[in-house]
Amino acid sequence: LFAATTVMADPLPSWSDTEVKSGIVAFVETVTDPASDDYVTPSDRIAVFDNDGTLWGEQPVYFQFIFAIDRLKTLAEADPSVLSSDVLTAAAAGDMETVLAGGHDALFEILNATHSGMTVDAFQQEVAQWLEDTKHPDTGLPYDEMTYQPMVELLRYLRDEGFKTYIVSGGGIHFMRVFAQEAYGIPPEQVLGTYTNTEYAMVDGEPVISKVPGIAFVDDKEGKPINIERTIGRRPIFAGGNSDGDFAMLEWTTAGKGPRFGLLVHHTDGDREYAYDRESPIGRLVDGLDKGPGLGWTIVDMKQDWQRIYTGQN
Amino acid sequence: LFAATTVMADPLPSWSDTEVKSGIVAFVETVTDPASDDYVTPSDRIAVFDNDGTLWGEQPVYFQFIFAIDRLKTLAEADPSVLSSDVLTAAAAGDMETVLAGGHDALFEILNATHSGMTVDAFQQEVAQWLEDTKHPDTGLPYDEMTYQPMVELLRYLRDEGFKTYIVSGGGIHFMRVFAQEAYGIPPEQVLGTYTNTEYAMVDGEPVISKVPGIAFVDDKEGKPINIERTIGRRPIFAGGNSDGDFAMLEWTTAGKGPRFGLLVHHTDGDREYAYDRESPIGRLVDGLDKGPGLGWTIVDMKQDWQRIYTGQN
Ligand SMILES: [Ca+2]
Ligand SMILES: [Ca+2]
Repeated sequence: LFAATTVMADPLPSWSDTEVKSGIVAFVETVTDPASDDYVTPSDRIAVFDNDGTLWGEQPVYFQFIFAIDRLKTLAEADPSVLSSDVLTAAAAGDMETVLAGGHDALFEILNATHSGMTVDAFQQEVAQWLEDTKHPDTGLPYDEMTYQPMVELLRYLRDEGFKTYIVSGGGIHFMRVFAQEAYGIPPEQVLGTYTNTEYAMVDGEPVISKVPGIAFVDDKEGKPINIERTIGRRPIFAGGNSDGDFAMLEWTTAGKGPRFGLLVHHTDGDREYAYDRESPIGRLVDGLDKGPGLGWTIVDMKQDWQRIYTGQN
Repeated sequence: LFAATTVMADPLPSWSDTEVKSGIVAFVETVTDPASDDYVTPSDRIAVFDNDGTLWGEQPVYFQFIFAIDRLKTLAEADPSVLSSDVLTAAAAGDMETVLAGGHDALFEILNATHSGMTVDAFQQEVAQWLEDTKHPDTGLPYDEMTYQPMVELLRYLRDEGFKTYIVSGGGIHFMRVFAQEAYGIPPEQVLGTYTNTEYAMVDGEPVISKVPGIAFVDDKEGKPINIERTIGRRPIFAGGNSDGDFAMLEWTTAGKGPRFGLLVHHTDGDREYAYDRESPIGRLVDGLDKGPGLGWTIVDMKQDWQRIYTGQN
């Protein structure tokens, strides 16, 4: 009698009771049911997630970019010669129009100026301090409380069901690893992303690893499945993203044999968050909306499917 | 009474009862003892191991190189135009003198000719078939039974004590992942190594990842700590190797704060295996012997410290 009346705690309390939620739960129950034809052994329960716009916010611009600009300003205050180009001068002055007009080259210039020339440890202390000191211009929340509560629940639910959860993001590994364990329960070795060159050297008799100029790998678009194959060495069965930068990752994941889940977070809630997709320079989503449903992917309508947005806000 | 007379099963039965064995056990018991000042939480119990010459044999040449030559011969039988250079012609003819005289360039040429132009899946099927079909010229054993039984026991012992065990090898990830799970109990995502470029593309409506020419990363010397930092994101507390290619990895590992273990396998047993170190082109060990003991590293004397060598041989 007791067993029959026990109600399992809802693993996804911040998700509305829509088809999206029931679809996720049905998938997880199927692949973890040893009696099912679609049962997947725990070692193959790999789930990968984009970060910006999927696990936490990304507006008005990527949070790591805000960090870079803040850091550039700090560096320029101490030594104005850091601003050695028009792009850097514009960035430090907050002239985003000039920066954005410079495209990827301008972005990499700012990254090189702010993400190199120090040890990884020192860089990560800077990031930790910045996260502690800085609030988002619109929400007033610390950035690491702007994680999406429904996605944090999804990550935990998947892990509780024997999945290994990974981040696979265009963001930098050294940046994300500072908060990923606490914010998402994802340890450093499960954080994949873009990375700068690093150098190993002896300094004052101690070996140190330092960030040096140059991006060694850009973890975006086709780079995502390539990085997953290279680093994890098996094809995930669950992939979540929010932009066309995730298309290849979801495509590769869901083309595998057996049960697969592709999830796209669609930013539809201009009141509680931001509404953007096809025309947005950040988190542009066109192919995912046009082709995703035909590939069996689930489109999360944030407005309809999420009862709550940020972890730091009730 | 029962508890007092229970003798724990020896976790390292193929190790002789020498100081090396007792040193390993003492280290593991210390870092796993919550009452110890040197206790290490499970998430930080990261152990990294070189593969060739540390976990399995590497004489007369690296086994992956033997695979490459075998594959080159097979390819040339089907299409002689594959042998498009003197180095490749020499390699297919078994003229190792010419190949070795060509240094790294010759090696990369052979790798490009034999480790690209196919999907990762197809490559790994070739490796699996080769491991099944081929025996080592001296021992007559399949290559994947030439793992060192004492090291296989050490890996298992560490995992039983909450460690996460990784391979960090100059060998190729796609090659090693074929046998690492079965031979060592190490899953694909814990196999770090050298890797070729790969490409993501749609072929006949299916996404595939293919190996293409060019080495993207060489996991040797300073590359080892760089790869560990990049991929695992924390400093190991245990590192094992056998050559100067592992020096930086052991140096970085053992320079960390708190208890650390650096282990070098010294090939001293010319009767049961091979005896080589300072003068050997394969597995050259000079700095490790000269500086390792002063850095607190443990040098394993295979002849003295190991009661058994290969897993496939009693
Ligand atoms: Ca994104
Ligand atoms: Ca070696």
